[in-house]
Amino acid sequence: MSRAINRDTQLCMSLSGRPGNFGTRFQNFLYEALDLDYVYKAFTTQDLPAAIGGIRALGIRGCAVSMPFKEACLPLVDVIDASAQAIASVNTIVNDGGRLHAYNTDYIAVRTLIEQHRLSPQMRVALRGSGGMAKAVACAFRDAGFGHGHIVARNETAGRGLAAACGFSWQADMSGLQAQLLVNVTPLGMEGAEAERLAFDRAEVQRAEVVFDVVALPPETPLIQLARTLAKPVITGAEVIVLQAVEQFVLYTGVRPDDGLIARAAAHAFGR
Amino acid sequence: MSRAINRDTQLCMSLSGRPGNFGTRFQNFLYEALDLDYVYKAFTTQDLPAAIGGIRALGIRGCAVSMPFKEACLPLVDVIDASAQAIASVNTIVNDGGRLHAYNTDYIAVRTLIEQHRLSPQMRVALRGSGGMAKAVACAFRDAGFGHGHIVARNETAGRGLAAACGFSWQADMSGLQAQLLVNVTPLGMEGAEAERLAFDRAEVQRAEVVFDVVALPPETPLIQLARTLAKPVITGAEVIVLQAVEQFVLYTGVRPDDGLIARAAAHAFGR
Repeated sequence: MSRAINRDTQLCMSLSGRPGNFGTRFQNFLYEALDLDYVYKAFTTQDLPAAIGGIRALGIRGCAVSMPFKEACLPLVDVIDASAQAIASVNTIVNDGGRLHAYNTDYIAVRTLIEQHRLSPQMRVALRGSGGMAKAVACAFRDAGFGHGHIVARNETAGRGLAAACGFSWQADMSGLQAQLLVNVTPLGMEGAEAERLAFDRAEVQRAEVVFDVVALPPETPLIQLARTLAKPVITGAEVIVLQAVEQFVLYTGVRPDDGLIARAAAHAFGR
Repeated sequence: MSRAINRDTQLCMSLSGRPGNFGTRFQNFLYEALDLDYVYKAFTTQDLPAAIGGIRALGIRGCAVSMPFKEACLPLVDVIDASAQAIASVNTIVNDGGRLHAYNTDYIAVRTLIEQHRLSPQMRVALRGSGGMAKAVACAFRDAGFGHGHIVARNETAGRGLAAACGFSWQADMSGLQAQLLVNVTPLGMEGAEAERLAFDRAEVQRAEVVFDVVALPPETPLIQLARTLAKPVITGAEVIVLQAVEQFVLYTGVRPDDGLIARAAAHAFGR
């Protein structure tokens, strides 16, 4: 960074079980581009209450929260925003003079993408997954008025629980579903062991109208590539991760970058 | 900084009632010059136990401790080094895998300067001041074998207490003292309200053999200027603040910079 750190520099940070570099690269790029006196650093912890207490006591301005801390930090904050309340899960903490406000910008991002892509609440949705991020996405669809939803998950307990919370139904696989909107919120297609696997098969994608893959790394997953091949409109996990990071940036700094700058920050953050 | 912050970057920090920029500028200059993956940031706090707990829980590598926290953090650390034990005062915390080790590099620096300047323990010392830093300096002289010491302080309780701890005597002013070594550990001569005041008058300096002013800002105080005018050897507060910061740097990183690099870091840190 060209700007030197001084006593007034604001620190923002992340807490996760396995820190990545996306948030660090994205936020620091924007701080520098906009000449804001902020710096961002990723952390992990074995002691969440002490870590959150440290954020409050040190005046750390903001903190992104990832697995496995998203639900555990709920009782440790002071004010819970509607976005975190909606899904009982936190991915962002903002420190306003010692009072910690909790948000969920994943939920906010998905709500925004549903609007931006003009998805009709009349669409029949099949959403694969039942973990923390699946909850954020399913609740965003629920709160956007989607009434015809199916949670598809091998974990029956988690799947039924999430379906009940959203007024959706549950089933273990895709058999018999004629979904218009396919949503993947599993790790299938993510960099690593399951990089080559598809959450939905070619016939399912062929029948669908829109494909939404929440996997962000790589930015173009095999499922997204298949959907593009079949000329289906797509929503990517890269859109989700960037948009939720932009919302965090706005919460921390009060500044909303323009679209061109966001695109450059995203390209930089995905750069390795 | 040219090196980008990433998930592996180590954070070091300071905690003080009124954060300055010296430590931030000094440490960050050396990190960059030596291409070490560290970053340094100054903090204050209203909740010392939570701040120290946060250092432990977040894996923050090191923390410089200044007024008013130097004694209050003693019960909050895990291991107390001899340098901090000697004066029951901490100015440095090093986090080794969640165990917090407390040091006092002010004490270490003064011990080193006594050796470097070959001060004889036979010298009669007059030390003005009775605060936290005065304790570090007086105990360093005591432990270096100085037996003929006078604590000169208007605060009789603090002055007598410090004198007793060191085997020195106390008096309220300089009357009757024929000191060979004058040591100022008061704010007299420091930038601000008392910038023009001298801790020792011209006649006292004229009679002395060595003058030691612990005030570091400005690096050349009126007392040091007077002593140089009278051709007296001096030890400056700039030497103390730089040397104690070097010891912190070594404790945090395990790397000892060479003298040329230290001089450049000091010039940069004093640069404003």
